[in-house]
Amino acid sequence: MELTFYTDYALRVLIYAGLYRDRLCLVSEIAEHYRISRNHLMKVTNGLARGGFVKTFRGKGGGITLALPPQKIRLGAVVRHMEGPIEPVECFRAGNQCVIVGPCTLPPILKDAFDSFLSTLDGYTLADLLEGRAALVRRLSPGSANPKRKPRLAHAARR
Amino acid sequence: MELTFYTDYALRVLIYAGLYRDRLCLVSEIAEHYRISRNHLMKVTNGLARGGFVKTFRGKGGGITLALPPQKIRLGAVVRHMEGPIEPVECFRAGNQCVIVGPCTLPPILKDAFDSFLSTLDGYTLADLLEGRAALVRRLSPGSANPKRKPRLAHAARR
Repeated sequence: MELTFYTDYALRVLIYAGLYRDRLCLVSEIAEHYRISRNHLMKVTNGLARGGFVKTFRGKGGGITLALPPQKIRLGAVVRHMEGPIEPVECFRAGNQCVIVGPCTLPPILKDAFDSFLSTLDGYTLADLLEGRAALVRRLSPGSANPKRKPRLAHAARR
Repeated sequence: MELTFYTDYALRVLIYAGLYRDRLCLVSEIAEHYRISRNHLMKVTNGLARGGFVKTFRGKGGGITLALPPQKIRLGAVVRHMEGPIEPVECFRAGNQCVIVGPCTLPPILKDAFDSFLSTLDGYTLADLLEGRAALVRRLSPGSANPKRKPRLAHAARR
């Protein structure tokens, strides 16, 4: 079971914007620091803006910023908005071919389970994702976050 | 967010075997009644057998049957076994490229949420999926469960 990359990237954008709340952040800058596609991030950022999680400002000097304080951004709300309707098995989707749809009680049971999933996420906010603020900023600084480079340096240092 | 087809089909196999507990069920028969691939169902049935949910008997007169009474088969256990490790975002998987792995608190938060999902499913058993037994059997009877045919017949009857 996976979240879509859309939700995954949305959470990364919110973390970035939450770390740099004192200024507007550029999508290109966020893409570069996370080393992910700017085009993907444009779509993700538009989705976050539609959900009321970020504000976007166009033109020169523009960028994005959180629309709410981090402790007001519930992770359940972000996942619910970015994932869209949760359709865990065939009968939730258009074109269902499962023949027992109707008398089968699996759909309400799965709905109950996914409600628990989302309620648990509602118990957390973006503030919880920013707890390791200093370490997160270090990881996002250019040149410092290449995990492939780390073990080699550590090894060299021990010699 | 979706369950794999493997888990989806596993639940269908268990429902079928739960409806016909008085005899062994053939994989080819289950495939035919659900109108799904026999090859897929072979894999699914082997997975269910490895998990201890069904017993399989080979050879002529062979087939599958539930290994436990329906009220002893927890849906959380089935989903946990069939889905395998839950890896909702990139950093859970091999080859992770996300640069904030380590200080980021998203992994334990997502783990908590998926634990809630599975705990809720553990509150249900296969017996809950068999509640509409008579209607389920009707739907699985050949010729009676084609949803495409139904509206036409209903329409004809109204004339």
